[in-house]
Amino acid sequence: MPALRCIKFEDNTLHLLDQRILPTHTAWIAHSDHIQVAESIRNMTVRGAPAIGVAAAYGMALAALNQADWSQAKQTLAESRPTAVNLFWALDRLDALTDKSPESVLAEAQAIEAEDLSMNHKIGESGATLVPEEATVLTICNTGSLATAGHGTALGIIRTAHQQGKVKHVYSCETRPRQQGLRLTAFELLHDKIPFHSIADSAAASLMRAGKIDFVVAGADRITANGDTANKIGTYMLAVLAHHHNIPFVIAAPSSTLDPNLPTGDHIPIEERDSTELTHAESIQIAPDNCPVYNPAFDVTPGTLITAIVTEQGILTPPFNIK
Amino acid sequence: MPALRCIKFEDNTLHLLDQRILPTHTAWIAHSDHIQVAESIRNMTVRGAPAIGVAAAYGMALAALNQADWSQAKQTLAESRPTAVNLFWALDRLDALTDKSPESVLAEAQAIEAEDLSMNHKIGESGATLVPEEATVLTICNTGSLATAGHGTALGIIRTAHQQGKVKHVYSCETRPRQQGLRLTAFELLHDKIPFHSIADSAAASLMRAGKIDFVVAGADRITANGDTANKIGTYMLAVLAHHHNIPFVIAAPSSTLDPNLPTGDHIPIEERDSTELTHAESIQIAPDNCPVYNPAFDVTPGTLITAIVTEQGILTPPFNIK
Repeated sequence: MPALRCIKFEDNTLHLLDQRILPTHTAWIAHSDHIQVAESIRNMTVRGAPAIGVAAAYGMALAALNQADWSQAKQTLAESRPTAVNLFWALDRLDALTDKSPESVLAEAQAIEAEDLSMNHKIGESGATLVPEEATVLTICNTGSLATAGHGTALGIIRTAHQQGKVKHVYSCETRPRQQGLRLTAFELLHDKIPFHSIADSAAASLMRAGKIDFVVAGADRITANGDTANKIGTYMLAVLAHHHNIPFVIAAPSSTLDPNLPTGDHIPIEERDSTELTHAESIQIAPDNCPVYNPAFDVTPGTLITAIVTEQGILTPPFNIK
Repeated sequence: MPALRCIKFEDNTLHLLDQRILPTHTAWIAHSDHIQVAESIRNMTVRGAPAIGVAAAYGMALAALNQADWSQAKQTLAESRPTAVNLFWALDRLDALTDKSPESVLAEAQAIEAEDLSMNHKIGESGATLVPEEATVLTICNTGSLATAGHGTALGIIRTAHQQGKVKHVYSCETRPRQQGLRLTAFELLHDKIPFHSIADSAAASLMRAGKIDFVVAGADRITANGDTANKIGTYMLAVLAHHHNIPFVIAAPSSTLDPNLPTGDHIPIEERDSTELTHAESIQIAPDNCPVYNPAFDVTPGTLITAIVTEQGILTPPFNIK
């Protein structure tokens, strides 16, 4: 069975698998300009830091093809999501091109996509060395093919370790409020025939207490010089719980996620998302009228709670001093 | 504004607030005989163990008023929710009456209701002494007027402390998978004009790390001799997080919840509920077809992580040795 993919660039059109309607419906959305791409990043048609970076790169390729204003296009795409550093990294990499012809920009976007896939396989290989034999692994959110150019980061480690026969079972956190774990990671695990259960985020603690979790692995949206890691809300919860239960807690991310210019996670802006993500189930209101909601999309895990950070360049261990 | 109530007995009619359609719709259902009451317990018009006990008691009062067969009426109500202990307790208490005249049975049902309300106020008064001034309080699930004869247990402490001017803000965990926090606790907090935000369960950790939580309070379904406490899934998560962040973690429950015959929480059976509670949002499927789900309804918090247990009889502190 071919690996899942979520990004295709064909005939001067960027096709993104609409992750808002997965896993019950499969549809591709075609984008012919960078404004459409920015909107699809904003509305989470495409999500996952590496996939956002690849999509943004193709957005700039469309801008070049359409002879749009380069700086305006870059700004439009940069403003589509505030937390994911890969977005800015991809845009800066294209900005650094001396030749900004459509052919050159498109070639660079394609290189970014190919490099991401290659990096993920390297992350998987390195990370799998940390996974115990016969492991039951806990993860959160979606960090797989649907969040990257393919294979995945944290889920890539699970995928590689499973191919090596080391993974006995996976528990996949639902990942409130948008349920990317339940909707997308479950979809990928079923696709790959990896044995698992989906759980409510709040059920992870009692699984750990029962001795049923051997290894926790999560992705990252941004990692600062001291190893502080921003990732989907609930990641910090898992790190504290893993620490309390003496379970390895590993972060997996491409090195483009590393942000050595930020000394600590205190400087990472945390995006707060719309309250309807909690107040409504699909389109049905479930909370009372005017229910006030605090809905941060990310949290920051201090590097002191992280056992290892796996990138395509290898394994970092504490104390982290990322340069 | 009068306190929120979910049970009213007036003019020989039992009125129950329909909790199946809260918080978006408010409707009272009138019951003129015990068969209707049994159906409303069965279909969860009324929920929460203490509230079910009170409703069943009024069901027997209706049976007496209608000169229905006493034993058949008791059996009909007993069969309405086979696992609710308070239900049998209330029915047995009425069965023990030597005078089963309508006036006597109704008076006893009213006494059961009044006693539950009184216990909750005592829990609130005792527990409020533990709440710091200007406190921001975190809670989970619904433990308020809608689960009891009124006021509530954990939410009763918040209510009393707020009346005393000690509560600055509340964060209310959504409480996956059935969202009783988002649906019901939010409804009660809005009704009482207590300032709050609803949050995803997984957002509690980062609020604690940011220094925004001063006090955590939760209810209990069962408490063993050593203080181990079974409560809604996610409670243990909050206890570990509170411990890590050095925040008081308090349990509130009527003393009937204490089970000194069980030495530890290891002996408490944990109910696993239907996977559709996770795989579906309202009636809409959101997980992939055939998604395997592990959905425990409760978890056990060890007494060693509990700062205090508050009952109507006072405050217990560790080490717990409940007799």
